[in-house]
Amino acid sequence: MPYRIAENAALVIIDFQKAIDDPVWGRRNNPDAEDKAARLLAIWRKAGRPIVHVQHLSTAPDSPYRPAQPGCDFKDLLAPGPGEIVIQKRTNNAFIDTGLEATLRGFGIGELVIAGVLLHNSVDATVRMAGNLGFKTWLVEDATASIDLTDLQGRLWTAEDVHAVSLAQLNGEYASVVRSEPFLDRLQTLVADGTPA
Amino acid sequence: MPYRIAENAALVIIDFQKAIDDPVWGRRNNPDAEDKAARLLAIWRKAGRPIVHVQHLSTAPDSPYRPAQPGCDFKDLLAPGPGEIVIQKRTNNAFIDTGLEATLRGFGIGELVIAGVLLHNSVDATVRMAGNLGFKTWLVEDATASIDLTDLQGRLWTAEDVHAVSLAQLNGEYASVVRSEPFLDRLQTLVADGTPA
Repeated sequence: MPYRIAENAALVIIDFQKAIDDPVWGRRNNPDAEDKAARLLAIWRKAGRPIVHVQHLSTAPDSPYRPAQPGCDFKDLLAPGPGEIVIQKRTNNAFIDTGLEATLRGFGIGELVIAGVLLHNSVDATVRMAGNLGFKTWLVEDATASIDLTDLQGRLWTAEDVHAVSLAQLNGEYASVVRSEPFLDRLQTLVADGTPA
Repeated sequence: MPYRIAENAALVIIDFQKAIDDPVWGRRNNPDAEDKAARLLAIWRKAGRPIVHVQHLSTAPDSPYRPAQPGCDFKDLLAPGPGEIVIQKRTNNAFIDTGLEATLRGFGIGELVIAGVLLHNSVDATVRMAGNLGFKTWLVEDATASIDLTDLQGRLWTAEDVHAVSLAQLNGEYASVVRSEPFLDRLQTLVADGTPA
């Protein structure tokens, strides 16, 4: 596949905390998004490339993402390893009131590969900002997930609908949307070869 | 209606330039969005409240929004008046690389009423940022518009679908979505009475 990925492209994993399994969110799609993100993480670790874990500390008193309770912890499969960057945020957008932009600029990182939840919320807000700040941004569609939404007229949009519309809004305008399979295959080949991507 | 709108809430009108009538965008909904925005503008002017006009200066060489050609001009109905703030942006998001946040903070403005185009693009990016920056944000759903979008699977989503999903994503999380009619009626009453809103 013809993906050209910078050698120092950062993997940015957003809000994959235990809270995402709380029933309050309702039905979601892509149940294997965590596994896809874990595969990306394994490749990034093997290649020694920069990894950013974004942790949401909700300010809402009833949110499963509020601090100081188990929901706020990272999922075991996607917990940060030694030397990996952790960015804690309090809004949807990982760039607001955090050191994310300064950290990336400080390391000379100009390219991001984004996974996480929820696509139509924190991932969308962060991807739009990343693109508008000038970062070349890849959004891995099957390493993210959406939930069912009811619109203001009471019409139910399935998580799959919400996912498809969100990707259509973001692709080409803020990010390049990719699926993990060809993307991972490409990266694995490069890592195995020692070839710069 | 029980809207409580700050006396110094700013009306922020996004990208209502002649370029939006270019056929390149395809089919759109809400053909009277400009009229609705103009009604808001008239009320804000009558009340002497702060008004921000956001003008997109596209960096894409083939965009109808590129500078120094007629598409970049504001629509006649929505052209800035004397003393009204004009913010020129080069990305989708009116807060990126502009003086918008500093201007609002400098005037002590903590509340925004947003109209403009396109809902799922520059309006969405700006509304998400406004909410995450802590501005109380009203999004006037019928003073904005969307266009038909085709997703990555080739499925066509009508402008009405895109509009409904976008509003569902934004409402309650980043902004309060309102229709112009009760909102305008409330404001007109307040302006007529001289009552602070």
